[in-house]
Amino acid sequence: MTRQFQLVRSLIRQEWSRCSISRWNRKFATLEQTVVEPSTGPDPSKLETKISNLPGPSEKMKNGEVRWGTTFTNHMFEAEWHLEEGWSTPRIVPRHTIELDPAASVLHYGLEVFEGLKAHRGTKDGKIRLFRPDKNIRRMAISCARLGLATFDQQMMLECLRRYVMIEKDWVPHGRGTALYLRPTCIAVDPKLGVARSKRNLFYIIASPVGHYFQGGSGGVNLLATTKYFRSFPGGIGFCKTGANYALGIIPSEEASRLGCQQVLWLSDAKNRYVTEAGVMNFFVLFKGAKRPELVTAPLDGTILDGVVRSSILELVRSWGTIDVSERKYSIDEVVQRISQGEVIEAFGSGTASIITPVTGIHYQDKMYSIVSDTEEKISPKLLKSMQDIFYGEVEDTFSWNVEVDTE
Amino acid sequence: MTRQFQLVRSLIRQEWSRCSISRWNRKFATLEQTVVEPSTGPDPSKLETKISNLPGPSEKMKNGEVRWGTTFTNHMFEAEWHLEEGWSTPRIVPRHTIELDPAASVLHYGLEVFEGLKAHRGTKDGKIRLFRPDKNIRRMAISCARLGLATFDQQMMLECLRRYVMIEKDWVPHGRGTALYLRPTCIAVDPKLGVARSKRNLFYIIASPVGHYFQGGSGGVNLLATTKYFRSFPGGIGFCKTGANYALGIIPSEEASRLGCQQVLWLSDAKNRYVTEAGVMNFFVLFKGAKRPELVTAPLDGTILDGVVRSSILELVRSWGTIDVSERKYSIDEVVQRISQGEVIEAFGSGTASIITPVTGIHYQDKMYSIVSDTEEKISPKLLKSMQDIFYGEVEDTFSWNVEVDTE
Repeated sequence: MTRQFQLVRSLIRQEWSRCSISRWNRKFATLEQTVVEPSTGPDPSKLETKISNLPGPSEKMKNGEVRWGTTFTNHMFEAEWHLEEGWSTPRIVPRHTIELDPAASVLHYGLEVFEGLKAHRGTKDGKIRLFRPDKNIRRMAISCARLGLATFDQQMMLECLRRYVMIEKDWVPHGRGTALYLRPTCIAVDPKLGVARSKRNLFYIIASPVGHYFQGGSGGVNLLATTKYFRSFPGGIGFCKTGANYALGIIPSEEASRLGCQQVLWLSDAKNRYVTEAGVMNFFVLFKGAKRPELVTAPLDGTILDGVVRSSILELVRSWGTIDVSERKYSIDEVVQRISQGEVIEAFGSGTASIITPVTGIHYQDKMYSIVSDTEEKISPKLLKSMQDIFYGEVEDTFSWNVEVDTE
Repeated sequence: MTRQFQLVRSLIRQEWSRCSISRWNRKFATLEQTVVEPSTGPDPSKLETKISNLPGPSEKMKNGEVRWGTTFTNHMFEAEWHLEEGWSTPRIVPRHTIELDPAASVLHYGLEVFEGLKAHRGTKDGKIRLFRPDKNIRRMAISCARLGLATFDQQMMLECLRRYVMIEKDWVPHGRGTALYLRPTCIAVDPKLGVARSKRNLFYIIASPVGHYFQGGSGGVNLLATTKYFRSFPGGIGFCKTGANYALGIIPSEEASRLGCQQVLWLSDAKNRYVTEAGVMNFFVLFKGAKRPELVTAPLDGTILDGVVRSSILELVRSWGTIDVSERKYSIDEVVQRISQGEVIEAFGSGTASIITPVTGIHYQDKMYSIVSDTEEKISPKLLKSMQDIFYGEVEDTFSWNVEVDTE
C-alpha cells in the first residue's frame, strides 16, 4: 500500500507544484469566496473491505453494450464524517441501500455534493487509468467547503478512490468509448429540521460501466439558449457540483426537448446574455479569426463548473500553438450573428460524461441556427482523438494526466 | 369521512373562489413560468393506517418545553408517485427510516421539495386547527411542478394531511407559542445517474412539536445584509421551497453569526441591492410617512418565497386601513439611510417557523444599524397578538384562515 500511495502522491504533486492548494485557496477566497479547510482522513491505511458474493460483470458488458448510469457495480466505498470527531474507518462493502431518517438534511436542504470521473481500460496494455482524479477530488473539496459539508485530505481521498477502483477493476469495460464512471458523493444525514451546518455526513462512491452519454452516440446535439430560465449568478454556487444546479434544469431541458434540442445552453442573465455552459457540459465555440481561429469558452468567474475536460482541452489546444485560446465573456448574440455570417467553424460541449460532443445547432429567440461545417479547420475530431488516445493509453501521457490504478 | 372531506372542501373553496387555481396558473405561467398540471390522488378514501405501539408524547411536552425540529411524533404519512402509474395507496404508518439507492436522484440532483405548516391547539376550546394549509399545499404543487416532481390533487392532499394530524393529535402541544410543525416532503427516488425528470417520487409528512424557532424566544434578531453572496435571481427557483435555496445559505449564515447576526438578509444583486427576504423569513420594514406609516415588503417577482405569514400580515394590515401597505422593490441603501434619519419605526421577519420576529439591527457594509424604537407606532406586537389569537382560537376567524381538524 505504502508504495502505491507514494506513487499516487508523486503523480499528483506534479500538478500541485504548478498550481498549489494554497494558490487555489487564495483564488477561491477571492473568486468564489470558498476556503477549503485542512482535514485528515479518511485514512486509506485503515480501509476495511468486505467482498460481495454477487456474480461479477457479465459478458455483455465486455462488448461495451452498456447503458448510461443505470448499471452499477457490486461494491461501494463509504466513510462517515462528523464535525467534531472527524472521519470514521473507511470501508469498501457490497453495494447497499442507504437508510436515512425522513428529517435528514440532505432530503430537505440540498446538502449534497458529487463528482463524476472515469477509469479507462488501456486498449493495448489493459492497464486501468483514472483521468485527472486529483482535479475532481479538489473540486469536490471546494464544493463541500462552500456548502459546509465534510472536509477531507485530498491525497487520502484519492488513494481511497484508487483502492475502490482496484476492487471493481473487472467492471471497467473493454473498448474505446467505454469507461467505468465513478460517482463520489457526500450527503448530510443529521435528522434535524433547523437550517444549519450538518454535523454528520456520509461520503460514498458508487460506479457504473458506461458508453456514450447521449443516446445514439456523440453525433451531435442541438442546444436551446433560453432567456426564460437561468442557472447561476455571481455570488451563487454555480461553480459547485451540487444538486441545486441540476434541480432547476429539469423543466428547461424538457422545453429544449420539445424544440428539438438535447440540452439547454445557459446564458448569464436576460440583459448581457453571456454564454456560460450547457446542461451537463462546458461549451466551446471556434470562431474564424483574422489570422488564425479563436477557440472561445466562458471564464471561471464563479458561475460555471471548472470542468476537467474543459481545462484539458484548453491545455491541449494551447500546446498546439496554432489557435488563439480565449477564456472570455461572449454573448449568444455574438455567436448567432457570427453563425449567420459564416464565421463559426464549429461549436462543441465538453464534460466527463459526454467527453467532446459536437453542437449541430443553437435554438435562440424562436430560430434554429444550424452549425454545419465540414471543413478541415474543425478541431473537435482531433481533440476527441487526442483525449481518447490518452484515456486508453495509446500515446505517451505527456501532460501526466492519467493516474494508473495498479491492478497487480 | 365524506362529511369531513366536504367540510374541508367547502372551507378552502372560500379562498379559491377569490383566487382560483386557474388564475394562479396564469399568474405563475407569466411570473414564475410554472404550470401546475392537474392530477388525481393521493386518494384519502383509500388511506391505510397502521398505529405505532411506541409510547405517546410525554408530560414534558405538554408544558411546552419543546426544542425546535429535533423531537418527532410516532407516525408518518407516505405515498409513492409514479410518472405513468400515478399515486399508490396512501398510508399512515409508524415513523421509519427511508431506504434509498445510493444513486437516487434526490441525493445527487436536488430533486426535493418541502413545506412547513402548523397545527395549533385552541387555548380555550382545545380544538386543533391548521393555519391556512391550502396555501402550503398549493405552494408545494407549484414547487413540485417547477422541479418536475409529483403532481397531485390539492384537495385530496389536504385531506390526507388533516387525517394525519388527527392520528397525531395528542402531539399538538398545549399553550400559546407552541404548535405541531408539519413537514410535507417530496423526493425523487429513481436510482439513475442521468439528469432527467424522475419517474418515481416519495411523498411523506413528518411532524415535530415545537416552541420558538429562535433560541431565547423572539426577543429580536440581527440580520447581515451581504453583498458577497446572493440567494436567487430572475429566471431561477427562488419562489420554490426546495433544498437549493437553503444549501447555499449555510456558509453565509455562519458569517452572519460571526458578526453578531442570527440570519442573512438576502439582497437581489450587487448593483441594485434590493432587499428580498431573510434566511428563513420574509422581511418587512415600517417606515414613517408624510401622513401615515408605510409597511413595505418585497414583491412576489419569482425570486422570493410567497410566505403564508407574509400574505396574512399584508391582509391583516390592509384590513386595518390605518397604514399604507406596499409590495415594492426597495434597496438596502434606502433602509439604512432611513434608519440613520430616524424614519424606520421598526423591521421584522415573518415565517411559519418564526411567526413574527422583531429585527433589532442590520449589519451592512461593515456597520451595524440598530433599530431601537419603543414607540406606540410599532405594529409587530399587535400583529403577533392578532395572529396568535387566530392560531389559538381566541377570536373569531373572520378571514376563514383556520381549517379545523375534527378530533371527534
